[in-house]
Amino acid sequence: MVRSMYRLRDKYAIAGIGFTQFTKESGRTTRSLASEACLNALIDAGLEPDEVDGIISFNMGDSDPGIAIATELGISNAQYFVDIFGGGNVAVAFMLQAAAVIEAGLATNVLCFRSMNGRSGLRLGGSRVQKSQGFSQYTAPFGLMTYPQAMAMWCRRHISKYGTTAKQLGTIAVNARANAGLNQRAMQRAPMTLDDYFASRPIVDPFRMYDICLESDGACAVLITSSERAKDLKQPPVYIMGGAYGGGPSQGFSFEDIMRWPDPAHNCFKYIAQSLWTSAGAGPTDMDFAEIYDCFTYSTIMGLEGLGFCAEGEGGPFIETGAIALDGTIPVNTHGGLLSEAYIHGFNHTIEAVEQLRGVAGSRQVAGASVGLVTAGAMTSGGAMVLRN
Amino acid sequence: MVRSMYRLRDKYAIAGIGFTQFTKESGRTTRSLASEACLNALIDAGLEPDEVDGIISFNMGDSDPGIAIATELGISNAQYFVDIFGGGNVAVAFMLQAAAVIEAGLATNVLCFRSMNGRSGLRLGGSRVQKSQGFSQYTAPFGLMTYPQAMAMWCRRHISKYGTTAKQLGTIAVNARANAGLNQRAMQRAPMTLDDYFASRPIVDPFRMYDICLESDGACAVLITSSERAKDLKQPPVYIMGGAYGGGPSQGFSFEDIMRWPDPAHNCFKYIAQSLWTSAGAGPTDMDFAEIYDCFTYSTIMGLEGLGFCAEGEGGPFIETGAIALDGTIPVNTHGGLLSEAYIHGFNHTIEAVEQLRGVAGSRQVAGASVGLVTAGAMTSGGAMVLRN
Repeated sequence: MVRSMYRLRDKYAIAGIGFTQFTKESGRTTRSLASEACLNALIDAGLEPDEVDGIISFNMGDSDPGIAIATELGISNAQYFVDIFGGGNVAVAFMLQAAAVIEAGLATNVLCFRSMNGRSGLRLGGSRVQKSQGFSQYTAPFGLMTYPQAMAMWCRRHISKYGTTAKQLGTIAVNARANAGLNQRAMQRAPMTLDDYFASRPIVDPFRMYDICLESDGACAVLITSSERAKDLKQPPVYIMGGAYGGGPSQGFSFEDIMRWPDPAHNCFKYIAQSLWTSAGAGPTDMDFAEIYDCFTYSTIMGLEGLGFCAEGEGGPFIETGAIALDGTIPVNTHGGLLSEAYIHGFNHTIEAVEQLRGVAGSRQVAGASVGLVTAGAMTSGGAMVLRN
Repeated sequence: MVRSMYRLRDKYAIAGIGFTQFTKESGRTTRSLASEACLNALIDAGLEPDEVDGIISFNMGDSDPGIAIATELGISNAQYFVDIFGGGNVAVAFMLQAAAVIEAGLATNVLCFRSMNGRSGLRLGGSRVQKSQGFSQYTAPFGLMTYPQAMAMWCRRHISKYGTTAKQLGTIAVNARANAGLNQRAMQRAPMTLDDYFASRPIVDPFRMYDICLESDGACAVLITSSERAKDLKQPPVYIMGGAYGGGPSQGFSFEDIMRWPDPAHNCFKYIAQSLWTSAGAGPTDMDFAEIYDCFTYSTIMGLEGLGFCAEGEGGPFIETGAIALDGTIPVNTHGGLLSEAYIHGFNHTIEAVEQLRGVAGSRQVAGASVGLVTAGAMTSGGAMVLRN
């Protein structure tokens, strides 16, 4: 079967962004966080709440329905609101969906948000949640209960197949931290060296603490509208050139599905690369930066390889050349990523991409950035989009 | 703000339908039920599982993610799968969304399903669920915990404002049962008279037991694809002419939102009527039948009035004329509806509409049916679509 392909190139745009502080102990509800982020996105775009008629969120049972946010903000005209069950895998897809529903005429100005109390509330990474959600009912008896455990085995495959080294993984963590140091939003900004990386405590082999993303409280939001309308709003539009969502075989979230994946030396991005780049009319060498979903250091490698920034198996050496640094050939996670900025389930990557394309990223600005990539998801399914200014 | 309007008239079609038995005690998981319904929809359409690349479900935390169903059926090519949080309000909207994502190029053939163990599993109508979901945290202390309670107060408003009578409500229940008697899928087929209605036990004034929908185990599924592809499949296509989703002010699901609605003598449909009919290029008098979301008898009245089959306040007398009977001017809930066929959160209305438009509804067939209406939702938000053969 031929893959379908996103065909709304440049027709829709991100016209506003909003976010809260990213913290460990917000002391706040997901509803309060979501409302703040959404309101900030509207202020950024220069829109009144009543000009919003669509709201899309994603969550894993740990947030509020979008319609509740409409009530909070006084949006009385909502005519399209959906809340999608999903994790990082849908953090880009749900923005492509926003464009789709505008194209279909179901809405005009769509707020997309994700709010979470990942640190002080429901900790997605913990074994308690996995058991209560039933994700691991067949693997928990054998001790496999958390994503770090599953991804560790995936990473081990890459190591044994391609000789990927701890130093290469560490370089990803150090790069993220270096960028975070230039980003006032980042939760972890203290300088980190490779020595610090090696000294961080082992969590699950081959992962040390610094291989694994943060747990955060916070929310992000964007306002998506037609490119035509976006041009009349307050901020310069950031256009959605192309995108893709899905993956290969066995796309389920359960650990059984994850461990059934045929070769964890690559992830979903290998399967969506062609439709992503074809839909955008661009390729890896056209990207000025890449915000790659880095719930683990290793997922950065699979993203780079799967989407063609380097060949499969060459991610480690590629990273050692300095290619992903701010002054490298493809700056990666210019904000510090999930590893050092915050874990808002990947949404924060889009916020950063928009700031880069607006040219307002301050000391971490990629000079002359005009086209960039955002990915979301790390294992059996995910999405990616190409944005331009 | 001008309402957006669905603009994909006749471009997408329902090419397959599937369902399970509707029962009180299935003894089965929602996953098993969903898989059966989805497989039946594929068999009906004449498609292999691997020809499906999109899956959309809706649930209220009581079902399985679509991707799990992909695993069950051996769909290895899924590239668009979302699970929407929602109740009857989204039971039509999510099909409009299926069309939207196909239009955007995110998928080609989309399975839509809803699976529930509403009777033997999680009982959505019960106070336990409402409390555990936090819907009623501000109203539960005062005893307001269930939808029947909330809707009873809405209905009381219609009674006091327009003089709607118990006999008129009862006529809706009797009509549904009469149609169910002609429908082998229906859970409740025993003949019912108005006397039986009046003799049924009071639940919450003004509702008797027969004013309130069933609780069911079961699943329904449809396969949506482009009209062009649908023409090459096994069944005659049923085209989506138009649709709308949303409502008026205060669209939230919580009881606070529901009780904040300005005038419960009407519901969301009053607000979406214009965009529904304009998008379809048709009006109430063009409909050969109307499958109206009837979680309560009263919601049938609001649907008929809100969408213009009669004026607001005239629903009761309109029904007493016999207009909604199989041989009336606008046959309503030809399958027995949620009151007498089953409560699959409104999805079963679409199944029936497709059977009517295929002309395979047997002894309950509306002669020459070529265009029909399906609504979903009953209170602060909902959706509706116009289908044709």
